[in-house]
Amino acid sequence: MAVRHYTLDFKLSAPADIPATVRGVQPIFQEQEMTETLHDTEGHGYLATFIGKNGRFAVLRVHSHGLVTFDLQCCEGDDATQVDNLLNALEKKMKTLFHGNIKRSKRLPALRRGDKVDCYWPTADGRLVEYDIDEVVYEEDSVYQNIKILHSRQFGNILILNGDVNLAESDLAYTQAIMGSGKESYAGKEVLILGGGDGGILCEVVKLKPKMITMLVIDGCRKHMRKTCGNVLDNLKGDCYEVLVEDCVPVLKKFAQEGRTFDYVINDLTAVPISTAPEEDSTWEFLRLILDLSIKVLRSTGKYFTQGNCANLTEALSQYEELLGRLSCPVDFSKELVCVPSYMELWVFYTVWKK
Amino acid sequence: MAVRHYTLDFKLSAPADIPATVRGVQPIFQEQEMTETLHDTEGHGYLATFIGKNGRFAVLRVHSHGLVTFDLQCCEGDDATQVDNLLNALEKKMKTLFHGNIKRSKRLPALRRGDKVDCYWPTADGRLVEYDIDEVVYEEDSVYQNIKILHSRQFGNILILNGDVNLAESDLAYTQAIMGSGKESYAGKEVLILGGGDGGILCEVVKLKPKMITMLVIDGCRKHMRKTCGNVLDNLKGDCYEVLVEDCVPVLKKFAQEGRTFDYVINDLTAVPISTAPEEDSTWEFLRLILDLSIKVLRSTGKYFTQGNCANLTEALSQYEELLGRLSCPVDFSKELVCVPSYMELWVFYTVWKK
Repeated sequence: MAVRHYTLDFKLSAPADIPATVRGVQPIFQEQEMTETLHDTEGHGYLATFIGKNGRFAVLRVHSHGLVTFDLQCCEGDDATQVDNLLNALEKKMKTLFHGNIKRSKRLPALRRGDKVDCYWPTADGRLVEYDIDEVVYEEDSVYQNIKILHSRQFGNILILNGDVNLAESDLAYTQAIMGSGKESYAGKEVLILGGGDGGILCEVVKLKPKMITMLVIDGCRKHMRKTCGNVLDNLKGDCYEVLVEDCVPVLKKFAQEGRTFDYVINDLTAVPISTAPEEDSTWEFLRLILDLSIKVLRSTGKYFTQGNCANLTEALSQYEELLGRLSCPVDFSKELVCVPSYMELWVFYTVWKK
Repeated sequence: MAVRHYTLDFKLSAPADIPATVRGVQPIFQEQEMTETLHDTEGHGYLATFIGKNGRFAVLRVHSHGLVTFDLQCCEGDDATQVDNLLNALEKKMKTLFHGNIKRSKRLPALRRGDKVDCYWPTADGRLVEYDIDEVVYEEDSVYQNIKILHSRQFGNILILNGDVNLAESDLAYTQAIMGSGKESYAGKEVLILGGGDGGILCEVVKLKPKMITMLVIDGCRKHMRKTCGNVLDNLKGDCYEVLVEDCVPVLKKFAQEGRTFDYVINDLTAVPISTAPEEDSTWEFLRLILDLSIKVLRSTGKYFTQGNCANLTEALSQYEELLGRLSCPVDFSKELVCVPSYMELWVFYTVWKK
């Protein structure tokens, strides 16, 4: 069971002539054998609903101030040609009725409501975007989060955590950005990766012959993101890497106590923290704690890489940059704007180093 | 005058108990002083509409086969907190009513209908995507097409031709791809650019010290796409380039007759042809004609670059590749998949050369 929801809107320079508009479009609904119900809007223009065959339902509103909206809901399996004809007839008629008065007419791609596969995964800045998802590859609720892997025709498998697009197989740009955009030499270096359960970073850093990579991760997705992680997650220990499936905070604290340090710390934990102990009462406190501990285990010549957020969330980014100024160890930072294919928004990445 | 259109959908494992659902949610509408109208759907489940204050209008449908959809239309300037409260109350109540029976619940970012600035510019493969447009910079209907330049917070100015996103100031990736992705040496070469009215290609090729660039273009946008075109369009003639504001076909025919040839031909004409003479009766015929003429003026060692379309339009791309096999001069080709930031879909670029 699914519904296609079509919209057709006219923005006018001057208010529409309601009686003329209604007279003009009514024959179209009559021809389609749709039964009209007129509603009293208490002074907010004309509003009529129409019930047709096959469960078709339409709403026509002529607002008092120059906007006409039309909605048509059709059930899955309805005759697409008939539906198209109705919309075409209505659009054509309205273009005639409103001739010379149209600022804009807009007929959007139909909303797909209740489809077997959900294609709408809003951006971090809250915009509605439709993906070309054709298959649910994997879905599970772990103790920490809802994990989905969906297949996109163009982006390949996409990892979605708690409804946020996390990484797709098309997104090498993300991995490259959070590794310093190719400007670093990892050969012979000691690297700490926080998070990165998709294996993308590990897979790319391994290729660069580091001395040792330590990765702290809660969960893996080695099965369904092969293009991203290759085979590096098949074993938790390799020649130059070790994956510890453990909570970051206690391990980082232990490293800091032991005086263990790294040339690179790459923080790829999701923006929403996976686990917060009572001492960290908010997302920001968690971020600050991880940052502080990361800088503690960073060598004086080392670099800390992390993702920020989408370019449009300027307030959140400013808050993060302010936080960088308040760490127990003074740091400097630079940032870079990167286009990650499956995100449909530009993403900010940070490089942080000790002053 | 604008409308926010909110949706809230529940996909259920088993059909909802209609009387229990209606009993459960009715108090919420009553509390909001919304007047219910029950509709006869002729066997297609429960359908009620509600009219509330400030022109609010809601539709609740409980479909027979496990889908519940809710629509709420509110006029611009309505009390956002009240609207949010209504949606929250409804979502919470439904989650209780359908507990254990919910496959998925979805509350999308509100559709912005009739807004001053239109933010919906569907992708080439017909998906609904919302842009972060905050200003209409320029709008005009030329003889050939509707030209819009809209400002996006993250992508900068975006050129939109006949409703298709053409190029944004963020899209250097497009220009680089259609120039051969940095693998070509333009120094001392003769280059022909078809289209490219935004000036991006001209601006980038000029930097590479070619012998001469000839550009055939209908229209320019030198004012509002400065980040893309720099100052190269301020004069139609420079040290190493000449811009001819003319129709491509007759000029290409003249070049072919004169035996004039080029090292590189870059075809950046829009996918929809701007002008078709009677002899070319379709888009494809126009494409074929341009291609044939371009290959005629291409040196035997030369390369022809062009955009294809989005990765998902596999049939159109196959048709184009078939066409490449039927040119009067035999050619080979390669293609590349490129992420152009403002497109929100992967784009295919072609390199074509003489066999």
